[in-house]
Amino acid sequence: MKAGIVNVTGYAGAELARLLACHPEVRLTQVTGRSAAGKPLGQVFPHLAPLGLAIQEDLDEVDVCFTALPHHASAELVPELLRRARWVIDISADYRLHDLATYERWYGHHPSPSLLPEAVYGLPELHWPAIARARLVANPGCYPTASILGLAPIIDAVEPQVIVDAKSGVSGAGRTMKLEVNHYCEVNENVQAYGLQGHRHQPEIAQELQEARNRAREHAADGVPLQVTFVPHLVPMTRGILATCYARLAQPLAQHQVMERYRAFYADQPFTRVVDAPPATKQTLGSNLCLVYPLVQEATGQVIVISCIDNLVKGAAGQAIHNMNLMLGLRPTAGLEGLAVYP
Amino acid sequence: MKAGIVNVTGYAGAELARLLACHPEVRLTQVTGRSAAGKPLGQVFPHLAPLGLAIQEDLDEVDVCFTALPHHASAELVPELLRRARWVIDISADYRLHDLATYERWYGHHPSPSLLPEAVYGLPELHWPAIARARLVANPGCYPTASILGLAPIIDAVEPQVIVDAKSGVSGAGRTMKLEVNHYCEVNENVQAYGLQGHRHQPEIAQELQEARNRAREHAADGVPLQVTFVPHLVPMTRGILATCYARLAQPLAQHQVMERYRAFYADQPFTRVVDAPPATKQTLGSNLCLVYPLVQEATGQVIVISCIDNLVKGAAGQAIHNMNLMLGLRPTAGLEGLAVYP
Amino acid sequence: MKAGIVNVTGYAGAELARLLACHPEVRLTQVTGRSAAGKPLGQVFPHLAPLGLAIQEDLDEVDVCFTALPHHASAELVPELLRRARWVIDISADYRLHDLATYERWYGHHPSPSLLPEAVYGLPELHWPAIARARLVANPGCYPTASILGLAPIIDAVEPQVIVDAKSGVSGAGRTMKLEVNHYCEVNENVQAYGLQGHRHQPEIAQELQEARNRAREHAADGVPLQVTFVPHLVPMTRGILATCYARLAQPLAQHQVMERYRAFYADQPFTRVVDAPPATKQTLGSNLCLVYPLVQEATGQVIVISCIDNLVKGAAGQAIHNMNLMLGLRPTAGLEGLAVYP
Amino acid sequence: MKAGIVNVTGYAGAELARLLACHPEVRLTQVTGRSAAGKPLGQVFPHLAPLGLAIQEDLDEVDVCFTALPHHASAELVPELLRRARWVIDISADYRLHDLATYERWYGHHPSPSLLPEAVYGLPELHWPAIARARLVANPGCYPTASILGLAPIIDAVEPQVIVDAKSGVSGAGRTMKLEVNHYCEVNENVQAYGLQGHRHQPEIAQELQEARNRAREHAADGVPLQVTFVPHLVPMTRGILATCYARLAQPLAQHQVMERYRAFYADQPFTRVVDAPPATKQTLGSNLCLVYPLVQEATGQVIVISCIDNLVKGAAGQAIHNMNLMLGLRPTAGLEGLAVYP
Repeated sequence: MKAGIVNVTGYAGAELARLLACHPEVRLTQVTGRSAAGKPLGQVFPHLAPLGLAIQEDLDEVDVCFTALPHHASAELVPELLRRARWVIDISADYRLHDLATYERWYGHHPSPSLLPEAVYGLPELHWPAIARARLVANPGCYPTASILGLAPIIDAVEPQVIVDAKSGVSGAGRTMKLEVNHYCEVNENVQAYGLQGHRHQPEIAQELQEARNRAREHAADGVPLQVTFVPHLVPMTRGILATCYARLAQPLAQHQVMERYRAFYADQPFTRVVDAPPATKQTLGSNLCLVYPLVQEATGQVIVISCIDNLVKGAAGQAIHNMNLMLGLRPTAGLEGLAVYP
Repeated sequence: MKAGIVNVTGYAGAELARLLACHPEVRLTQVTGRSAAGKPLGQVFPHLAPLGLAIQEDLDEVDVCFTALPHHASAELVPELLRRARWVIDISADYRLHDLATYERWYGHHPSPSLLPEAVYGLPELHWPAIARARLVANPGCYPTASILGLAPIIDAVEPQVIVDAKSGVSGAGRTMKLEVNHYCEVNENVQAYGLQGHRHQPEIAQELQEARNRAREHAADGVPLQVTFVPHLVPMTRGILATCYARLAQPLAQHQVMERYRAFYADQPFTRVVDAPPATKQTLGSNLCLVYPLVQEATGQVIVISCIDNLVKGAAGQAIHNMNLMLGLRPTAGLEGLAVYP
Repeated sequence: MKAGIVNVTGYAGAELARLLACHPEVRLTQVTGRSAAGKPLGQVFPHLAPLGLAIQEDLDEVDVCFTALPHHASAELVPELLRRARWVIDISADYRLHDLATYERWYGHHPSPSLLPEAVYGLPELHWPAIARARLVANPGCYPTASILGLAPIIDAVEPQVIVDAKSGVSGAGRTMKLEVNHYCEVNENVQAYGLQGHRHQPEIAQELQEARNRAREHAADGVPLQVTFVPHLVPMTRGILATCYARLAQPLAQHQVMERYRAFYADQPFTRVVDAPPATKQTLGSNLCLVYPLVQEATGQVIVISCIDNLVKGAAGQAIHNMNLMLGLRPTAGLEGLAVYP
Repeated sequence: MKAGIVNVTGYAGAELARLLACHPEVRLTQVTGRSAAGKPLGQVFPHLAPLGLAIQEDLDEVDVCFTALPHHASAELVPELLRRARWVIDISADYRLHDLATYERWYGHHPSPSLLPEAVYGLPELHWPAIARARLVANPGCYPTASILGLAPIIDAVEPQVIVDAKSGVSGAGRTMKLEVNHYCEVNENVQAYGLQGHRHQPEIAQELQEARNRAREHAADGVPLQVTFVPHLVPMTRGILATCYARLAQPLAQHQVMERYRAFYADQPFTRVVDAPPATKQTLGSNLCLVYPLVQEATGQVIVISCIDNLVKGAAGQAIHNMNLMLGLRPTAGLEGLAVYP
């Protein structure tokens, strides 16, 4: 099987290349990049020099293709990519939201909305059967991955107002330079909230949690819709997202009951682990794990869930390869077995 | 005026020395430390070498004394300190909680509870008149300073469940070595939640916010007590606390109304500034400022408040000097006018 | 006395504003900036909001003026600034090199070379008498400040090949974004050498060390000229430079003899301290100190000198204010007495 | 093949476990640890939980054994380990120095010196044939690995005084807490030199470079012995060592000639890559690569070599596995093919 990456020059693209380099069944044969076309990949990313690839302008035929383009640019290209590859996994946001109007409110005009109905939201823990049948998968955002996996097992048992207070490393803001979010001197030794007026990942979290709530309650609408308050923060580290989720139990549940719900929910999932103590982002660095820890605070009736991932792996490239494995019928964990690099 | 510091060898003690070195009215004449007694201060902290002080075992008479001992140890010494100094400011937690039973639940036996009734909680923005008359001030904790200042102006207008999701730099955990909270390799490139089962700063936040709510509503008990959910996080930076506070408005208020409340509340306060954009901890580094930014999220009825400080200055030593200035009748901002060190 | 800053929007300019805010004799009344003209200073740098200044396009008359423009741009403006201010301190490199040909080799065309002969190299430890009489001072570069102060006391007693291996924080590369030197993700958790083919600060170090050697030997040319190998490195921190200097003693000297030389050399200097143990950059953060520690390695005849500063203070803005104090006949340490912020 | 790790609870031990988890030919079956015996490995290191191992007090029989004990403790146990395992790789310093007197000067009494003659210094680039025949390999120190690989190809062509200025991340100082070298607040935003009076890795570097020089010159002693000045520095990052090496060419060599020497020297080595631009430590993070870049500075006759590694991989655990592969006759790169994690 041959794989290609469109726009390898960002962090998600480079991380795809790193992980595919060790994949036992799929070989990375082509990478593209706009400004860097013609250069050896190892010149842009010295750690990828051992791959011996040159950056192309365009992709020829491959079996499976990943696009790591920004939104808009991705949706403009995906129809053509579906002609050149049998399977396409889109890392951008272009096919994540089912509702076109919602997409347009957050991202503007959609270049190829006709593909929306067939695109599958690529969170394997929730949608693995559909992913296995898809030819176009929308790879989830990094914040949504941590947030949804943190709340999904309990979302049908809580009051409809939930809060996600998320902390992200700087690589989530990408490789393009922006003074306030990735200049070292502005970001180092600093914590800041951002996107308080609304962040593009909020509708994605809301869509999936609302659906999960509906599925669990077995009726499409129980009246009050979920309200998701989402506040992202930038913290001085390169990788990692930690989502602290707050919800109020609709009916009392003991800690062991909540823990059992979580363990049952993720029993067959290789990459989401329910742990016994609050996890730390560093325990996931470089790996495809999501670590989840729920806690019932009896005095207040709050359930607090800590969920963490490496934003470039489980939050982007690793999850994309997990999706690829499911789409191609490979072992789900192929190429993703490396443990976290610690410390 | 002569000042002394008991236990200068921790970070709060050292920061007191740094700030007092430039105070125009008070001279630091004595510092003590248990294990380091006899050494020059500059040997333990090279940046304090210019002070030319030696670390003593015990304090002689001074006008004003700061104790930066751990809890218990501080309360054991404070009665004696009140004989040697006219004013005592306790950086530890020993006199912060008015209710002895609450203290004992969180900290164990109290060595000198008879002083509790006269000790004043040293948050100048809320208690400056009492501080000015006090001879014993309990300097607030770092998390409570950021949290209380974030919520006090709105606390009477929200539903009684509030959430504080706080992010702290590592110096808050002190200079004593503990693998998980201050070993560089364990903490660097890492975010983690802790104290989920209950953190000692929670009752302090609850006490002050409940009192503020009662004062604003002009009746001691309106039925439902406040429930404060407090989740602290450790982030990889040396200084700084950012508290993200979540509450639900009891009745609709527009953004400009909330902003006006905050501006009015802090109109005469030199160190708490209501700002127009989400603040970042780095904007306070080395300074005594607390920056506060409230935001009404209309879709959900949530009010989100971002509040940040330098945990060693406004969260400890700087606030202690502010308290000293008030107790001694000096200009409130004396010795605290330095701007933040940025970047 | 009124002071103005040309181009306040970089890190050196902002640091000048921070330090001048607390100066007892000089008041900062005007700041300029090209792209940000018209904005409140506090919008660009929130920590400077308390100054209440607006960014102007041009400077009116002031007593003393600092230019923090890039090289070329500074020299284009300095002749005009000398008409508007009695004293001018240039933070750029434009008047540091006495030899026009050397300047042109490293920086290209010089816009106003006629001022070169009167400009004084503003390293007070070496040139305070000339600085006190100057109307135009060229403020030294950050690397040269640490390197020259490290080697000057011994430069006449070593063989003519010296090596300076310097480590700098990221703020030395400025506020303008450059992927490889200040994108957080590229720089964090990383150490790299740069400028191996030659760095612009090398001729500045060589000029001053050669002159110091000549002065100490009391004859302008003793045959072999100094050869300075200078290798700068970028380390993941915001502020600080540590220069490790290597030279071979021309004749044996014992450790105590070398130490005495250093102590005598800096006996009357308020900001350069010879210390008894290897210093660390953090001991200077936010302060105008240079800490110097020489060590004779008897087995090899090497003398190793560790020298460190805060690159934005002693390496830029603080030294500029020290120069201003000397030029204006003020107390040399005025406005620069703050201790380092530690930790 | 079954492998065991003695003292898995330090960083080198944990990194061995991480890497062995993915080894295609060798299975990690036992790990020991003194204080943590009886605990699941995943409790001490959550990222190793997937291994499902418990920490034992003692090791049973295995095929190959790694000891990650501190020096002294390792040599006390190695004779016994050689009875339980056919191959032993010692991560400690106990068998690195051939000369017992030199060992005793730096480390004190040696518990089992009779094994010194048969132990092989495990730097595969220099000693692969002997490693392949050894049953006891002394795994090199982290600083020596970077330093020796940086200078070995040129050591016979330079004057006998060489300088290595090395910069290391904090994990090199181990997991045991020491205020000055691994308390987050003391180390963060800080660079410091240490070991100026002599560091234990200096004789190791000197031994190997002297031998390499002798081998290349084909006569055991050419009169003047090598003098190695070695100054290590601590920089604020978790992993990585960058060694900047300075030597003076004994006879003129052009840049391309030096480059050819280096390329020829490492032509068959899978893990040491001669690169075309100054490398950065981050390009090696998590991988077993050593990146080397030599530069001739024509004006001064200096050759400057930049060499960098991940101190826990090529500087410890990865190199140990490389040695194991050679000893067991496996593919040299088995289990070590992962690319660096970047950024």
